[in-house]
Amino acid sequence: MRFFSKMRERVDAFLHDEKLKKKLYIIIFESDTPMGKLFDTCLIGFIIASVLVVVLESIRSFSYHYTLGLRILEYVFTAFFTFEYLVRIYCSPKPKKYIFSFFGIVDLLSTLPVYLSFFFAGTRYLLVIRVFRLIRVFRVFKLFNFLKEGNMLLKSLRISAPKIFVFFFFVLILVTSIGTIMYMIEGNQPGTQFNNIPNSIYWAIVTMTTVGYGDITPVTPVGRFLSAIVMLIGYTIIAVPTGIVSATMVGQQRKRSKLECPHCRQAGHEEGAEYCKYCGWKLDRPDTGK
Amino acid sequence: MRFFSKMRERVDAFLHDEKLKKKLYIIIFESDTPMGKLFDTCLIGFIIASVLVVVLESIRSFSYHYTLGLRILEYVFTAFFTFEYLVRIYCSPKPKKYIFSFFGIVDLLSTLPVYLSFFFAGTRYLLVIRVFRLIRVFRVFKLFNFLKEGNMLLKSLRISAPKIFVFFFFVLILVTSIGTIMYMIEGNQPGTQFNNIPNSIYWAIVTMTTVGYGDITPVTPVGRFLSAIVMLIGYTIIAVPTGIVSATMVGQQRKRSKLECPHCRQAGHEEGAEYCKYCGWKLDRPDTGK
Amino acid sequence: MRFFSKMRERVDAFLHDEKLKKKLYIIIFESDTPMGKLFDTCLIGFIIASVLVVVLESIRSFSYHYTLGLRILEYVFTAFFTFEYLVRIYCSPKPKKYIFSFFGIVDLLSTLPVYLSFFFAGTRYLLVIRVFRLIRVFRVFKLFNFLKEGNMLLKSLRISAPKIFVFFFFVLILVTSIGTIMYMIEGNQPGTQFNNIPNSIYWAIVTMTTVGYGDITPVTPVGRFLSAIVMLIGYTIIAVPTGIVSATMVGQQRKRSKLECPHCRQAGHEEGAEYCKYCGWKLDRPDTGK
Amino acid sequence: MRFFSKMRERVDAFLHDEKLKKKLYIIIFESDTPMGKLFDTCLIGFIIASVLVVVLESIRSFSYHYTLGLRILEYVFTAFFTFEYLVRIYCSPKPKKYIFSFFGIVDLLSTLPVYLSFFFAGTRYLLVIRVFRLIRVFRVFKLFNFLKEGNMLLKSLRISAPKIFVFFFFVLILVTSIGTIMYMIEGNQPGTQFNNIPNSIYWAIVTMTTVGYGDITPVTPVGRFLSAIVMLIGYTIIAVPTGIVSATMVGQQRKRSKLECPHCRQAGHEEGAEYCKYCGWKLDRPDTGK
Repeated sequence: MRFFSKMRERVDAFLHDEKLKKKLYIIIFESDTPMGKLFDTCLIGFIIASVLVVVLESIRSFSYHYTLGLRILEYVFTAFFTFEYLVRIYCSPKPKKYIFSFFGIVDLLSTLPVYLSFFFAGTRYLLVIRVFRLIRVFRVFKLFNFLKEGNMLLKSLRISAPKIFVFFFFVLILVTSIGTIMYMIEGNQPGTQFNNIPNSIYWAIVTMTTVGYGDITPVTPVGRFLSAIVMLIGYTIIAVPTGIVSATMVGQQRKRSKLECPHCRQAGHEEGAEYCKYCGWKLDRPDTGK
Repeated sequence: MRFFSKMRERVDAFLHDEKLKKKLYIIIFESDTPMGKLFDTCLIGFIIASVLVVVLESIRSFSYHYTLGLRILEYVFTAFFTFEYLVRIYCSPKPKKYIFSFFGIVDLLSTLPVYLSFFFAGTRYLLVIRVFRLIRVFRVFKLFNFLKEGNMLLKSLRISAPKIFVFFFFVLILVTSIGTIMYMIEGNQPGTQFNNIPNSIYWAIVTMTTVGYGDITPVTPVGRFLSAIVMLIGYTIIAVPTGIVSATMVGQQRKRSKLECPHCRQAGHEEGAEYCKYCGWKLDRPDTGK
Repeated sequence: MRFFSKMRERVDAFLHDEKLKKKLYIIIFESDTPMGKLFDTCLIGFIIASVLVVVLESIRSFSYHYTLGLRILEYVFTAFFTFEYLVRIYCSPKPKKYIFSFFGIVDLLSTLPVYLSFFFAGTRYLLVIRVFRLIRVFRVFKLFNFLKEGNMLLKSLRISAPKIFVFFFFVLILVTSIGTIMYMIEGNQPGTQFNNIPNSIYWAIVTMTTVGYGDITPVTPVGRFLSAIVMLIGYTIIAVPTGIVSATMVGQQRKRSKLECPHCRQAGHEEGAEYCKYCGWKLDRPDTGK
Repeated sequence: MRFFSKMRERVDAFLHDEKLKKKLYIIIFESDTPMGKLFDTCLIGFIIASVLVVVLESIRSFSYHYTLGLRILEYVFTAFFTFEYLVRIYCSPKPKKYIFSFFGIVDLLSTLPVYLSFFFAGTRYLLVIRVFRLIRVFRVFKLFNFLKEGNMLLKSLRISAPKIFVFFFFVLILVTSIGTIMYMIEGNQPGTQFNNIPNSIYWAIVTMTTVGYGDITPVTPVGRFLSAIVMLIGYTIIAVPTGIVSATMVGQQRKRSKLECPHCRQAGHEEGAEYCKYCGWKLDRPDTGK
């Protein structure tokens, strides 16, 4: 009994050891100290190595000879990542926030598939989701500049998103209709691949995106004529998302290069402006307090 | 006799029952009341369900077992859509305007194929045109913002249309010429797919749009050399519609934010501007002379 | 003897009959009079019909039954176009200028292939070059607006041409190198299609332009890895011509929308300009002569 | 003994013969004198001829008959290029700078493969790297204008590079995940080409770049559904590098035309402007205070 109560005390002390937590936090979450840098570099190395293991395991001629070795490596990596995940929760000042953040979810999903694979065969390959953890690379190597670029890309995509969403809605309606019409035209050919509407819709998407596998192709003159029209439509339509993103980026670029009002400190004035558009201050008159 | 005249009266009263019409109009055409919202949501559900029925019917392994069920569902949906179409005409204040509007025509075309299929087998699949009715989804779920984006896209496309039309005219002349030349070069190869000029033109379109199915490919050195040139032309030419749409969208973006200063009458203020950038006048204060 | 001299006189008179020439010129070269419009409309109809004859002739199942009819039609059209060509030279005020203009050369090339086909079989298909005569359609139907758009497109392409030329030079150097490296990697595989460097260069062009026929595909791991890199390069590089043309068009657009100086009548002032950049005149002061 | 010391003296004199060096430098490195122009033109001819020899050697039906001739030509060209390389080092004022410059390395790589081919068969084809020497063509023919365009293209690409790098990083993460998921879905089909994860990643790249060879294609309904989504993602994502490069080029274009007014110090004048658009000052007249 005494042993258990002592045990409990120790666990309790450990769970509230703020000093240790802080120490671990600096090593695991930050990357400014030598230890933190070392940890993050090792982590990235482990992630790449564990993804390689998954990939190698899928190559039969290779995995045939090294089944055991690869399996052991996989378990080692998973054990490490599971331990790391638990430590991250332990030393995080706001564990809940971490658990439900993008990286928290990715960290969890990076270990789960192995445990699931004891029950469902094949889920092990989902481990490859670990590759998303590599996004950390930007933080570790202080690629702040790249992160900024990535943010600008994401921002441009987010601004463009509603337009692109509407665009896809129309594309979906279009490919459904085109797929059905092609099924009616080509569906009766012997040995055709247009054997049902879902396959025809798949063909329509393959064609309109200009991927053009060639696994399903029209053989009748009418079908080829219609395909040609679909291609030319796709050719024009490919211009739309490109146009949307280009216009957004040109707009973004223009906004960035603006001067600041000396009075109200707001930026975003067009070239050629003489008065601040927010407070009416003359832009070239310095604000000397009064 | 008396029965008929009474019948007639009732029908007459029904046809001019403005109160009922208004009630139905609010439910069917608008979507602000709970009933209207419910109706529209059900309608969208029915449209998706009925398109799914058409798609499932085309999958042989599936339709083999459920022919009857699918057929009954199809008739039920068609009966409902026909009834809905008639009610829409009945309660519309200007029936003609509705009948010849985009949605009126789509609503009609959504029911006709079933009736046609009694005479011509296979036309039933045209029912899939119902998918266009889904555009209503934007109105129902108050996706006004998306509608605005869609309008901007359509406007950009409409402004770009003449340029794109001219562009396609030249593309058609080009593919006709290239197709004929390839027919002359490759047409004599044993087992070639370039067996006539329409097929060669189809190949030219497949190549220039960078779809590249691979069902028709050159095999002679001269043919491959010419194809390579056609591809590089297509590669440059793909830039043209994209350039047109991008330029239009950049222009649109710039135009949206123009308003005129009430004082100095100069335009060119950015969106969000409160003071004129040329004279410092507050943009929303009318200039009353003095 | 007398007969010949009289004949000569008549021919001479005919060759210098300025009145007849002017009359014919108005009918053939212009399209403002009813006769001119009728002539041009017929001409376009004949061009389309004669191209259709060439296309139909290439379809074996069709031409088998109508060989004679198609051949006669072809000779009739060619006779008409030859006669038209001679009349155009006759009534043109500056025959040489017409003969060496774009349309003069196309008009000549539209008739030559038939005469050549008496000596070289197969050249007859070159008749399809007649399709270029259709560009006249813009003039006939007063599609001035479309012509303007076409000119703007051509101008944008011409401005972009040097950049695109440089771009293609680098692309050629790139595909030659990539093709050779792929030949070294894949050339030893049994039954490979990478059987010589020209074929490998053809593959490199097919891949980099994202056409992707699939008639030549890598099978070795190294080859597939290299292809993936080539595709990603092509994916980035496709952005370059599009970017060039887009930037040119945005620039063009900006230039078009400018106001005119009231003093020197030169346009092309940027928005926000207060003084003419060519003569220094204040742009909003009307020029009242003095 | 005397002979050797005399020999040494001569070599020494030769190695420091500044006059000869200068003469050779003008011929080999510059192209303004007739001799320099002649040399450069011959050089370009030799480069094209030697690349042709490599290409012809790879065509079996051709090289079978002319093995000896082609081999001799190759050795002759290589001897010439080796000699030229040594002379370039000899007459260059700063040999080290030349050796480690882009052209110095290309010049070395253009000769090495032949010498390597004595030890490793097959490396001879690397000679094709000579094609990069052709970039000299721009200097020789005074295509300064084209060089400027090329520099602008390179500059645009360099400015866009960080954004495109980030973009590719995400694309790599994406294709790894998609490839693995497709391997899980399609990997169990008999005779499938999705037989390991690297092949599935190769498929994902082929699909997302819209190349679409069709050597690996999904056959299951789930696989086809996922591919359709991948294609639509690729279709949107293709817009990103194009948008980046377009925005950069539009920005470049705008930047080129900036100069500052000497009087009011305002920038933002268009190219071709003679007077300041803000104060009417003549732009090329310096403002001397009064």
